[in-house]
Amino acid sequence: MPKRTKPQVVSGVSPSGSLNPHIQAQRRKLRPPGEYVRGILEGSRVMLSQAITLIESTRPEHQKLAQEIIGLCLPHSGHSIRIGITGSPGVGKSTFIEALGLLLLEQGRRLAVLAIDPSSKVSKGSILGDKTRMEKLSGSEAAFIRPSPAGESLGGVARKTRESIILCEAAGYDTIIIETVGVGQSETAVHSMADFFLLLLLPGAGDELQGIKRGIVEMADLIAVNKADGERLPLAKRARQEYRNALHLFPPKESGWAPKVEVCSATTGLGIPEAWQQVLSHWKTTEENGYFLKNRRNQAYYWLRESINQQLLAAFAQDPAVQEKRKAVEQAVLEGKLSPFQGAEELVALFLGG
Amino acid sequence: MPKRTKPQVVSGVSPSGSLNPHIQAQRRKLRPPGEYVRGILEGSRVMLSQAITLIESTRPEHQKLAQEIIGLCLPHSGHSIRIGITGSPGVGKSTFIEALGLLLLEQGRRLAVLAIDPSSKVSKGSILGDKTRMEKLSGSEAAFIRPSPAGESLGGVARKTRESIILCEAAGYDTIIIETVGVGQSETAVHSMADFFLLLLLPGAGDELQGIKRGIVEMADLIAVNKADGERLPLAKRARQEYRNALHLFPPKESGWAPKVEVCSATTGLGIPEAWQQVLSHWKTTEENGYFLKNRRNQAYYWLRESINQQLLAAFAQDPAVQEKRKAVEQAVLEGKLSPFQGAEELVALFLGG
Repeated sequence: MPKRTKPQVVSGVSPSGSLNPHIQAQRRKLRPPGEYVRGILEGSRVMLSQAITLIESTRPEHQKLAQEIIGLCLPHSGHSIRIGITGSPGVGKSTFIEALGLLLLEQGRRLAVLAIDPSSKVSKGSILGDKTRMEKLSGSEAAFIRPSPAGESLGGVARKTRESIILCEAAGYDTIIIETVGVGQSETAVHSMADFFLLLLLPGAGDELQGIKRGIVEMADLIAVNKADGERLPLAKRARQEYRNALHLFPPKESGWAPKVEVCSATTGLGIPEAWQQVLSHWKTTEENGYFLKNRRNQAYYWLRESINQQLLAAFAQDPAVQEKRKAVEQAVLEGKLSPFQGAEELVALFLGG
Repeated sequence: MPKRTKPQVVSGVSPSGSLNPHIQAQRRKLRPPGEYVRGILEGSRVMLSQAITLIESTRPEHQKLAQEIIGLCLPHSGHSIRIGITGSPGVGKSTFIEALGLLLLEQGRRLAVLAIDPSSKVSKGSILGDKTRMEKLSGSEAAFIRPSPAGESLGGVARKTRESIILCEAAGYDTIIIETVGVGQSETAVHSMADFFLLLLLPGAGDELQGIKRGIVEMADLIAVNKADGERLPLAKRARQEYRNALHLFPPKESGWAPKVEVCSATTGLGIPEAWQQVLSHWKTTEENGYFLKNRRNQAYYWLRESINQQLLAAFAQDPAVQEKRKAVEQAVLEGKLSPFQGAEELVALFLGG
């Protein structure tokens, strides 16, 4: 059971967190990193929330503190199953996650649900922002639900979610669900931090699969045909067969896992335990053949490269010499007076020389 | 008609170019940039070839010279229609390009055919490497065919192709075809440098479209169902109808152009003039509504950002302080002792501090 942190270190704001956490973070005095970490390790949801708010903040002092907290939590992280879940809007992701989540809580697991939604400008209103969509789950002490960080670039949003996973794991959540809406490249980002990738589809088969990029289907470890209840059940079963046939056309996965297709319904509970069984079975397979660890190492390596890239570009963008000259170079490139390569060379030389 | 350059400046190798151009470039004395540019502007295929070989070279002195040549050619570039062509292996890209190309030559146009194939390790054997696949076209003085540059990363290969376009345009080629094989992300690269994007498909409809990523279909200005001859003609016509139906499901394009679907056959010549008519019609539409120029400016801006990115990463990778520490940081990140962000921070600080 999470413990409340001592209220006296908070300046004027109750740690129960009734205010918007972003406003809280700005009003609140920052604590030493060890204090957040102690709270997180003790399972304090308030401390976890506050630390994630620091991760999401763009203020340099918040970022610095967040990175110290992440570094201290790192040795306590990693002991979880990370499940990526995607599907087009309307496929029933929230109800599926709620049904699966309640099953997991019954089994004594602790669940954190995070999200990647690069379109979200503010937390409110983004996917998962409306916690009422997972009412039962969000009422439980063993579940932690956090909406997508708001940010301009997918890369930034994805990094923040990945770092939040570390804190959630340190706080004792042994199952992490990362949700994304099935549009654009956010699935690739989720895939880069998940052990298991679940694609939710609707009954309706062929047409439906065409709307999903082939690359996303290729990532799936499990395709679940959702809303398989009432009149849609036969349709869903037919879709299951079609997807199974289609999956045969894909090359075998490096993980050694043969992707599965199941029907399920969050309303009737059909297929939810089976979906979880597939997650466990996949975990067992990849633990035994070494892929689980190999994949996590590959992901860490990927994120190292991504972080280098992001930090270099950020330093470049903030460089005063670059800032002074950038507009003129852009203009010359747009007018065809300078090739893009030459323009870049000029700006990069300014950056590295300065 | 292209003029031969003076042979006396070439050290021991005939400018007719019987040797592999890469070997030639290393044996040959470098000329001043103005000499290449003069040759290119006079329409010398040999000079154009040699300059492209410099673009493709990884040697710093070749790169430096290549960039000077590009800068000097830039004011003479841009006056062409750039057509990206993609399609799965076996769809008949080469025969289609040959048939279209011969039509263009008849109309007095001058055609350069370039390629992006990131899988090509050496020029020989890559797509377009085997010129016999476009025998008639490659025999013509008004056509210039160049295989894909060999390179490790798609970004590098794409940049070199984009720079080669500038030189080809300066050499008077008014129609540029950039071919890529329909796998992976190379279509996006081609799209980033083409005015018009043509997707070749085979008769066989639905199944076929599933194998092509949705994003690629969305890029297409024209889908041509190829090999529409003999017994395949009715099948191709059915496919045309299905693709036309499918295209209705896509959102309208920013260019204001409604993508078309046609059947064609390089063997019988069916649909080839119609395909070219679509290119011209698209050009007229986008010239009038301003999208043509807007798109070219967006592409230049995209390539400026790409170049900045590539140059920053290259400078980072070559930094001695980074090189010394990189392995240890990677190891610490892989072992979970350092977060990817912290690892990146450490290396980027070394780079910027050094």
